[in-house]
Amino acid sequence: MSEAPHLTFDLDAAGVSRGHLVVPAGADCEELSLPVFSLNKGKGPRLLVTGGCHGNELEGPIVARRLMGWLPEAQTCGRVIVLPVLNPLAVQAWSRNTPVDGLNLNRSFPGRAEGSVTERIADAVSRLLLPMADTVFDLHSFGPTWDLPPASVTHPIADADLMAKTVRMAEAFKFPMTLVWEYHDTLGMFDTLVQNQGKVFVCAELGGGTVGSEALTIYEAGVRNALIALGLVEGKAEYPTFRHQKSSQTLETLSSDELKSPVQGIFEPRCSVLDEVKQGDLIGILHPMYSLSAESIDIRAPNTSIVCAIRSGAHVDADQGVALLSRPVNI
Amino acid sequence: MSEAPHLTFDLDAAGVSRGHLVVPAGADCEELSLPVFSLNKGKGPRLLVTGGCHGNELEGPIVARRLMGWLPEAQTCGRVIVLPVLNPLAVQAWSRNTPVDGLNLNRSFPGRAEGSVTERIADAVSRLLLPMADTVFDLHSFGPTWDLPPASVTHPIADADLMAKTVRMAEAFKFPMTLVWEYHDTLGMFDTLVQNQGKVFVCAELGGGTVGSEALTIYEAGVRNALIALGLVEGKAEYPTFRHQKSSQTLETLSSDELKSPVQGIFEPRCSVLDEVKQGDLIGILHPMYSLSAESIDIRAPNTSIVCAIRSGAHVDADQGVALLSRPVNI
Repeated sequence: MSEAPHLTFDLDAAGVSRGHLVVPAGADCEELSLPVFSLNKGKGPRLLVTGGCHGNELEGPIVARRLMGWLPEAQTCGRVIVLPVLNPLAVQAWSRNTPVDGLNLNRSFPGRAEGSVTERIADAVSRLLLPMADTVFDLHSFGPTWDLPPASVTHPIADADLMAKTVRMAEAFKFPMTLVWEYHDTLGMFDTLVQNQGKVFVCAELGGGTVGSEALTIYEAGVRNALIALGLVEGKAEYPTFRHQKSSQTLETLSSDELKSPVQGIFEPRCSVLDEVKQGDLIGILHPMYSLSAESIDIRAPNTSIVCAIRSGAHVDADQGVALLSRPVNI
Repeated sequence: MSEAPHLTFDLDAAGVSRGHLVVPAGADCEELSLPVFSLNKGKGPRLLVTGGCHGNELEGPIVARRLMGWLPEAQTCGRVIVLPVLNPLAVQAWSRNTPVDGLNLNRSFPGRAEGSVTERIADAVSRLLLPMADTVFDLHSFGPTWDLPPASVTHPIADADLMAKTVRMAEAFKFPMTLVWEYHDTLGMFDTLVQNQGKVFVCAELGGGTVGSEALTIYEAGVRNALIALGLVEGKAEYPTFRHQKSSQTLETLSSDELKSPVQGIFEPRCSVLDEVKQGDLIGILHPMYSLSAESIDIRAPNTSIVCAIRSGAHVDADQGVALLSRPVNI
């Protein structure tokens, strides 16, 4: 029987505390110590901010670092706990899943104390940090092979009140896009666990591609906006500038809005995120790789919509997603 | 003894031809058929365009496809051979090196007929396609973990005449940046082989991050500009628009201009490509991953320079490159 997961410090201590969440060793991996920051200003909202769930999405850990830099000066009440890197094994490997056991941490919640290392991380977070929070911001990105505007994302939630509350919270980031994403592969997601406890969970999908200086500025502004909306920080929320615009829209994408590659080949994107397209407009082209005589295949918009995500030019297999379309929604 | 590499069609045929370059089977891999396009309009410049040397740099194969689309209408003389995908095994795996033998194709030239599959590809290209060309454009990008402006690149060449000719050719792309890159790990590069034959070789490093629609437009314009400069195509060369500017600069980066991570940690970029920085300006920050008490380390500019490449935010090991600085040069 391994040691139980534990914190190296007292989360109830007033003011700033720094320490570790210890994930016990198992047969597959030695003990992990995940750095944790806590700022306790007594009564008020209780927020947990996590990053680095997927190891090739590093916006989250960096924005979490910046947040820890200015929070001690800015936070006026309540409690904020920050766990910048949920999965250090994946971050070190720049991989989505944990290399040791091949598991996706965001499909491993609530975890298992006696499971493999990814399950043990999920278990430690579920048992020791989640009970301390009423709201969770999980800072993701779309990974390196997609383009996505900076977005706050939620999946549909059966409880209408919690859904409305979650969408309001997501919109408070004032990112260029708030996205309600119909998505069925939700078993074991951190989202689902938190929402089943009646709490608000917003996933910030902070774009795709490289993690660059300009994008980080947008992401940091969005997180600050959300903290202002929660009442943890004073100040005036502002729309960050994205492609010379300061605005946001709330969009919905359904499972049926995912465009897929008809055959394998090289995908050429022909539009950009937030482009408005009409029925028949060109979204991308699929080029066969093994013949120059075979025709390339146009992938066209089936209806009037807004492109909310587009795949990077790359080799794709048949039936692989290449674009997500969407339309405005009011919730 | 395996079959020799061969072409399935006659490169000397007039007009458009399409066929394959056959790379013989070996113990590690079955026979490969690489699609080849040829447009022979008789006397004039002889150009070879290649893409897909590294499998996670797909701008090249896509721009090569576009080129094949409009070349039959546009080319007025000479010969152009296009090999959109040099390394289909790496492209399918979205990996820099060939998964089968772990080799970097751009360190495997001139190749070996009896070598592993990467060496056999290099051998087939060196023996059958390179002799047909006086100029080579190899379409790369900086890969998914760096930001780089669209750039034409050459390494310094000992032969001053060839160096000047190469820089003029590189500048003819009119990309936002022409880069003379001092780089010592050149053994086995395609560049070196071509230049040792007294031919002009330009490597287009078409940016990093995701392969998106806007970037592809810039890259295609650059290749068209270069074809106009060669005299293969008629028309007026134009600077493509990059970040609302239409201009180009020729920069030099030396080995000593590479900034490296002092320790392992998470790199946070704090500047963008083509930013002008002064001595002491912040380039990025390195955050230790295993402690929130340890100080983050600032990485600062050692002198006045222009940022020509910056690493994406990610986990880096000690002594790993995080930025390339540069300055204007006249050659």
